Amino acid sequence: MKIEILCTGDEILTGKTINTNHSFMAQRLTEAGLQVYRGTIVGDDRASLSQAFQLASERADAVIVNGGLGPTVDDLSQELAAAAAGVSLELHEPWLEKLKSFYTSRGRVMPENNIKQAMLPAGCEFIDNPIGTACGFALNIGKARFYFTPGVPREMRRMVTEQVIPRILKQSGLEVVTRLKRFHSFGIGESRADELLAGIEDLLPETVKLGFQSHYPQLETKLAAIGKSDSELDATLQPAVNMIRERFANFILCEDDETLEGTIIRHLQTHNQTVATMETASAGNICNRLVTADSHGDVVLSGVVSCNLSQLAAAVNMTAQDLPVDSDTASALAEHLRQHTKTDYAVVSLIDQKPLNDDSRAETKIFIAIASNRNMVTRQARLSGGTHWVTLGSTEMALDAFRRTLQGLPVDEKTDFEQQ
Amino acid sequence: MKIEILCTGDEILTGKTINTNHSFMAQRLTEAGLQVYRGTIVGDDRASLSQAFQLASERADAVIVNGGLGPTVDDLSQELAAAAAGVSLELHEPWLEKLKSFYTSRGRVMPENNIKQAMLPAGCEFIDNPIGTACGFALNIGKARFYFTPGVPREMRRMVTEQVIPRILKQSGLEVVTRLKRFHSFGIGESRADELLAGIEDLLPETVKLGFQSHYPQLETKLAAIGKSDSELDATLQPAVNMIRERFANFILCEDDETLEGTIIRHLQTHNQTVATMETASAGNICNRLVTADSHGDVVLSGVVSCNLSQLAAAVNMTAQDLPVDSDTASALAEHLRQHTKTDYAVVSLIDQKPLNDDSRAETKIFIAIASNRNMVTRQARLSGGTHWVTLGSTEMALDAFRRTLQGLPVDEKTDFEQQ
Repeated sequence: MKIEILCTGDEILTGKTINTNHSFMAQRLTEAGLQVYRGTIVGDDRASLSQAFQLASERADAVIVNGGLGPTVDDLSQELAAAAAGVSLELHEPWLEKLKSFYTSRGRVMPENNIKQAMLPAGCEFIDNPIGTACGFALNIGKARFYFTPGVPREMRRMVTEQVIPRILKQSGLEVVTRLKRFHSFGIGESRADELLAGIEDLLPETVKLGFQSHYPQLETKLAAIGKSDSELDATLQPAVNMIRERFANFILCEDDETLEGTIIRHLQTHNQTVATMETASAGNICNRLVTADSHGDVVLSGVVSCNLSQLAAAVNMTAQDLPVDSDTASALAEHLRQHTKTDYAVVSLIDQKPLNDDSRAETKIFIAIASNRNMVTRQARLSGGTHWVTLGSTEMALDAFRRTLQGLPVDEKTDFEQQ
Repeated sequence: MKIEILCTGDEILTGKTINTNHSFMAQRLTEAGLQVYRGTIVGDDRASLSQAFQLASERADAVIVNGGLGPTVDDLSQELAAAAAGVSLELHEPWLEKLKSFYTSRGRVMPENNIKQAMLPAGCEFIDNPIGTACGFALNIGKARFYFTPGVPREMRRMVTEQVIPRILKQSGLEVVTRLKRFHSFGIGESRADELLAGIEDLLPETVKLGFQSHYPQLETKLAAIGKSDSELDATLQPAVNMIRERFANFILCEDDETLEGTIIRHLQTHNQTVATMETASAGNICNRLVTADSHGDVVLSGVVSCNLSQLAAAVNMTAQDLPVDSDTASALAEHLRQHTKTDYAVVSLIDQKPLNDDSRAETKIFIAIASNRNMVTRQARLSGGTHWVTLGSTEMALDAFRRTLQGLPVDEKTDFEQQ
């Protein structure tokens, strides 16, 4: 089955907006076991759009068109779709009602030109948009089925995932339920992940695809499955899910839509606990990620950032001169920090060099200490790479050491990113 | 003149990699006064690539092809370009020599399959790649001139800017020197910027285009010019540059490749001065941006982040109970912070609510205080919007107030983003 993606709009064509919509749609289609055969970008221009519809209608089986469904004169998708299919535009009464009540509920009157968003090609299949004013629709042009979707990323994502892909799957004769199971890990490189999962192919039927996506320092491992029903998917996926959990073990940070920092904050919220942080060359990223995930603002009590050890000591009233950058200093700071801030945990991450802000490679030592009222956990590592790389790696390592501490797991399992 | 961009590669087609290369090329072309007429994405697949070459050769005058110049079997650009032009592949001796010495200088022997990167279509125009192993080339296919560029973004950017666009400009009969003058401002919305520059069109000849790009909270104002020589461009641009500097005045943060935080750090470095920061709901972003720009790590001495006022007070040994969130508290904290950290400046930003981490709109009060050994500067504002929006706005406002203080400018000029 040949599937094309056609993104429309001057903003995309001229590069003012980066085309993340193509990436999202292509990725979801690929994960659903469908193959994208071509992508096209054209501007808000009658001749280009009509020609693009014409070409796609001759060579593809399914075309997802994105954008051009708005209320203004440069939004041309409905009109040119109708022309290409040789039908007229008709008012879709229920959508007009929905638009009017959308405006009424906000205490406004619908502008006249929004009527345009309820004018659809005669005989098309209506596709609902529960979170916006641009509805989608599907119709046949030439030998292809065209699916029209809004350009607003949030609206497009939901419509493509919930409504367009199931329709294309049905059209393709494939099974119609899809699932994407994701594992987020830190410390396992892509090639070792591949080795660790040796034999997994025996557990994967044709309908399940394994994929890796590395966004340093995390690795995402994905199982994309299609099937007839959710219960069938549960059964099909279980053996591979079990194997991944068993082989990646403590390196799995979280699954699906969870994040590392979200997992930490949820654990602390559940146990009514608090944390303070102190960091050198991770530039405040440890604090930043925890604070951003701290939705009620009552878990992360304090964060101190400085490249200067005596400043860190001064912030927790620790008298100290010429402190070395080592594990003992990290521990001492963590204990002082915990007492000074009266928190349950204190996380300290020190680094043995100043930030360089360039890409020159250097070896950097990281010292992490996590203090609680029960014990002191420490971890050290040597990371190599430029400043940006080390900042990313050391932030992840400190947060992961904290997660492991909270979950009662060993913190000293070596990662693939550090010198042995 | 019809220009097309053709991006190749399975990673782009399937959405694993976001197509930032299209955006970059389209933006540079637009800024050079050229118009992009269509974008296409195809995978590493003979039939699709050949068909894409064929179609583009029939309708375009110039085509930039990106990717497919690597050494592996799925890199097909040279081979299919030669086939489409009806010529054979020939060894480009100078490039082979360059490849060999590239490997020799790294103490390695060139792998056999890299020879492929020196096999170019007979009669093509060679395009140098000073920073990689994939050279570019240009040749005619059908009625269009095709420009082949490497997929590695860094290499593509340099080749497109320095070599491809000048060639397309020459092909188009347009002048051949281009310049992009940029102004970064905070506090002026796009529509007011437009009003402020009323009359600028009289200062802009046909060869200069004015454009705005809003990335909240900053606005970028661009003058894209083409001309015969750099001295001609200097003269052509000067009146418009003067007008923008005069009308935007103190709202201009910096120009061209400079950043707000870079401007601040450079000022402090030049004057041998230091700073400490303290912030609540900006989640550590003030500190993060300054530290990241602090290339030698000796300007930003300390940053404290907390949603909890008594934690902030404790970090600077300030005895205080039940502090209100107001301008006096911000000033008191700033003065204590400056003394405690022994810095030249202390920047404090307080916010009157806890982070909500959702998109519900609310009005938020921001209190900024900047202490130095000369005086205390304060600024307050009411921002409305969701948590993320307010975090961005308050970070920018604090950094901008600090820049204004350093540059001896008034800090209380109202922005378009705050309630009056």
